[in-house]
Amino acid sequence: MHNLCTDIIGKTKKNLMTEKKFFSLALELARRVKGQTSPNPAVGCIIVKGNRIIGQGATHPAGGMHAEIAALAEAGEKAKGSTVYVTLEPCVWYEGKRTPSCAEALIKAKVKKVLIGSIDPNPHVRGKGIQQLRDAGIEVIMMNDLHREILDLNQDFSKYVQTGIPYVIAKYAMTLDGQIATGSGDSQWITSEAARTRAHLLRSQVDAIMVGIGTVLSDNPRLTARLVNTVRQPLRIIIDPRGETPAEAFVRNDGLPTLFITLPGFGSHLQSPTSEVWEMGDAHGISMTEVFSKLGQEKKISSILVEGGGRLLHRCLKENTLDKLFVFIGGKLVGGRGIPPFNSEGANKLAEAPPVLRFYAENLEHDVLIHAYLKLWDV
Amino acid sequence: MHNLCTDIIGKTKKNLMTEKKFFSLALELARRVKGQTSPNPAVGCIIVKGNRIIGQGATHPAGGMHAEIAALAEAGEKAKGSTVYVTLEPCVWYEGKRTPSCAEALIKAKVKKVLIGSIDPNPHVRGKGIQQLRDAGIEVIMMNDLHREILDLNQDFSKYVQTGIPYVIAKYAMTLDGQIATGSGDSQWITSEAARTRAHLLRSQVDAIMVGIGTVLSDNPRLTARLVNTVRQPLRIIIDPRGETPAEAFVRNDGLPTLFITLPGFGSHLQSPTSEVWEMGDAHGISMTEVFSKLGQEKKISSILVEGGGRLLHRCLKENTLDKLFVFIGGKLVGGRGIPPFNSEGANKLAEAPPVLRFYAENLEHDVLIHAYLKLWDV
Repeated sequence: MHNLCTDIIGKTKKNLMTEKKFFSLALELARRVKGQTSPNPAVGCIIVKGNRIIGQGATHPAGGMHAEIAALAEAGEKAKGSTVYVTLEPCVWYEGKRTPSCAEALIKAKVKKVLIGSIDPNPHVRGKGIQQLRDAGIEVIMMNDLHREILDLNQDFSKYVQTGIPYVIAKYAMTLDGQIATGSGDSQWITSEAARTRAHLLRSQVDAIMVGIGTVLSDNPRLTARLVNTVRQPLRIIIDPRGETPAEAFVRNDGLPTLFITLPGFGSHLQSPTSEVWEMGDAHGISMTEVFSKLGQEKKISSILVEGGGRLLHRCLKENTLDKLFVFIGGKLVGGRGIPPFNSEGANKLAEAPPVLRFYAENLEHDVLIHAYLKLWDV
Repeated sequence: MHNLCTDIIGKTKKNLMTEKKFFSLALELARRVKGQTSPNPAVGCIIVKGNRIIGQGATHPAGGMHAEIAALAEAGEKAKGSTVYVTLEPCVWYEGKRTPSCAEALIKAKVKKVLIGSIDPNPHVRGKGIQQLRDAGIEVIMMNDLHREILDLNQDFSKYVQTGIPYVIAKYAMTLDGQIATGSGDSQWITSEAARTRAHLLRSQVDAIMVGIGTVLSDNPRLTARLVNTVRQPLRIIIDPRGETPAEAFVRNDGLPTLFITLPGFGSHLQSPTSEVWEMGDAHGISMTEVFSKLGQEKKISSILVEGGGRLLHRCLKENTLDKLFVFIGGKLVGGRGIPPFNSEGANKLAEAPPVLRFYAENLEHDVLIHAYLKLWDV
């Protein structure tokens, strides 16, 4: 395990460019399956021989092929002597694992060289995949070029596999002057339709979507990823302390599963063939820390998108449970006081507020999407 | 003047690429002098012969050379038969003009072809420069590739030359949850030092900087462009209805010019060798519309950066006087209610709020800068 992260590729610039190109392709393959692989990470793999791609693959849905196995299947016999570009360290077998070991498969296929984008954060695998390949005489190189992008892609997996607690993303849409609604509560629409489609893509990439009862009562949302193609719908979770979700709400009527979380004694009437109720908390309310822990343990939920409202977001932030923010900014202004994204008392001093470790803006067709990391779950 | 904007270059793709490259260079030259040319627009010019650059120039400070004249001076005799890339239509002579006509200079230099990025919005020139070149047998082509960028660069000039009213930009820095300060007023610092340097660059690119008395009392700002190299300092304007700027404030003490705007009867004590006082307004307060008009007419101010506070910004927005917003977003959260950018009553419905025509985000080193256009001043 020496030099695990410090290997540098000693190549001519021309070779490096090509390697980066193949690596970008592998990352692109991984991005395309993002959200369809839980609880596994999204991984991409490209197999190259004589500067030509002879196999490519990305993680299949849980229980299916890993990226390397899919790429090897495509390459067939030609994989012998090839170079493999893979965004995550190939896995090794361990007790309880459902799929075959990718490291073993690569050794069996007699590949010559493996370039790896990131170390597997899973404690069962971390570093062992690299070691197993090296022990078999395969040259292993850590690629640092797209390290940040690859880590960002699987922050959710990286947290969940290390802590058992789901990766929690807060999503809100605000105006250019920072309001999620006017003072009277008008929020339709701050962003364009294209941005709302993107928001549905984000829904399709998590295991669960969560909102507070206020959002159910004011918007009656469906909370489905319906503007994009997806193989599965995330679980809907409603934080409804006093069991106030109306019988006619979409989340109680459309035949899709919903989990209601209420205070003790408030949930029984919400039970139905498609809904489950957890009664939790005490006189201090419902602890979001406990909710997220239980979702990770009992439901194997690895990632959650919290869509509001402002009171639930405030609670999640206050309990220091948020890992990432998706902030959509639309081309609107309230022009004065409206409703802020975290809707309750704020910090008194800037230094007391939760720090943001890293963030950047992505320009969408008509709107802006900010990715902000409150925590980083690297190996 | 027929086909002024609809000419399309009928070239092979390869030629187009090269032309775009030369045009990007001309735009870059213009950008470098932005803010140093008022009341003239920032213009860049590249002269090319046999695919080599033989002359380049950008607008000199007011009264000095225009971009074309500077580029022709560098090219000398070689300009004969050359191709000229210029971001703005070359000017013609008109009554009261201080500098020689660029169109005439290009004709005299016997250039072969002129590619133009945008039509001069000045009613004395608009279309006449192009016509004069064409009448002399020079091929004139409108380049559409960088049209948007070129227009954005000189929105201030375009408004001022067409209306006589300065281009008004509001600038504020907010957290990722849309607050310009915590509830207790803490705002130092929301953005990084690099972003604050950028804010000083923005100051150096306008004729005047404006703040309200609240900002003077709470921050005692210098309001100078001191973190960047600049040939001039913008005029400082303080909206101080009741003449409350303390004698010890920087804006009354550092020897640089300041204009105070107060209600009638409140300004005489602010008068000094370096300060001027305008007493304006009535029982309804000071009309920002009147202030901006008067600044354009009496001071020839063509662009103003309004830096806050929230009450002044609210007033400017309410009177529909803002043309652009610069919104800095820093990696901080207030996590609840703080102070919004426009600090007074907001719109009741989103549809009632002022529309934003176009906006995009620029990723800075540690922060994000959003450019938002509330009005577009095109020809």
